[in-house]
Amino acid sequence: MTGVADRFDPIGDDDAVLAANQAFYAAFEAKDMDAMSDLWEHSDRALCTHPGWGSLRGWASISASYFAIFQGPQPLQVILTREHVDVHGDVAWATVDENLLGVEGGATVAALNLFVRHDDGRWRLVAHTASQVLTRADT
Amino acid sequence: MTGVADRFDPIGDDDAVLAANQAFYAAFEAKDMDAMSDLWEHSDRALCTHPGWGSLRGWASISASYFAIFQGPQPLQVILTREHVDVHGDVAWATVDENLLGVEGGATVAALNLFVRHDDGRWRLVAHTASQVLTRADT
Repeated sequence: MTGVADRFDPIGDDDAVLAANQAFYAAFEAKDMDAMSDLWEHSDRALCTHPGWGSLRGWASISASYFAIFQGPQPLQVILTREHVDVHGDVAWATVDENLLGVEGGATVAALNLFVRHDDGRWRLVAHTASQVLTRADT
Repeated sequence: MTGVADRFDPIGDDDAVLAANQAFYAAFEAKDMDAMSDLWEHSDRALCTHPGWGSLRGWASISASYFAIFQGPQPLQVILTREHVDVHGDVAWATVDENLLGVEGGATVAALNLFVRHDDGRWRLVAHTASQVLTRADT
């Protein structure tokens, strides 16, 4: 990333959060537990709601869930649409539609990812919530 | 609220956010559009994801959704469990399980409500995301 930083230095908060958000999905698609661990805040307040699941609280539970998901045979491929970032002080939230390929013909999930800027300047994920968008007969 | 403030003065941030979160559900149950409007930040960044819906962005879309929901004949009754508040500077998030009564025998929804403290000291809702918890055969 040195080259990118050299060309676009300094990057703004929005871009930094956007990069962290995209790194989250890159780690997910790559089933890369080390990258996922590096992105998340390792704390008791860390929170994760996978679609259809109850909320998981604390990094220990969250990491176990990703470990299980990454063990599965299915490829994880996500097309992101409607990505949007808001920053307020040292907290930021990214909202995005996750368009998951290969899940019984595809599924769309509305997600909100909450980041906190740590003392080292890096934005770390403290909450990921995802809710499946159902096809509705009246829309 | 003067009496309460007199007895428990000053209340901490956690308690203030908890009160705002509970006021949100009180407004929902009462189908009280004025109270709901008073709770939310009226901005373009306001975000709302009802269970199964795509994300709505901006107070205009969100208020229209509550107006439609409140027009419905069904009673809205919610039992809150696993309520938890985290505060980070002028941003706070409350997580809670919404146990909705009367929806085909009941449903549980995992919610995250994001609040920002405004200049007047009041915490206002900037995002509400809700994801239905499905009963899973393997849990």
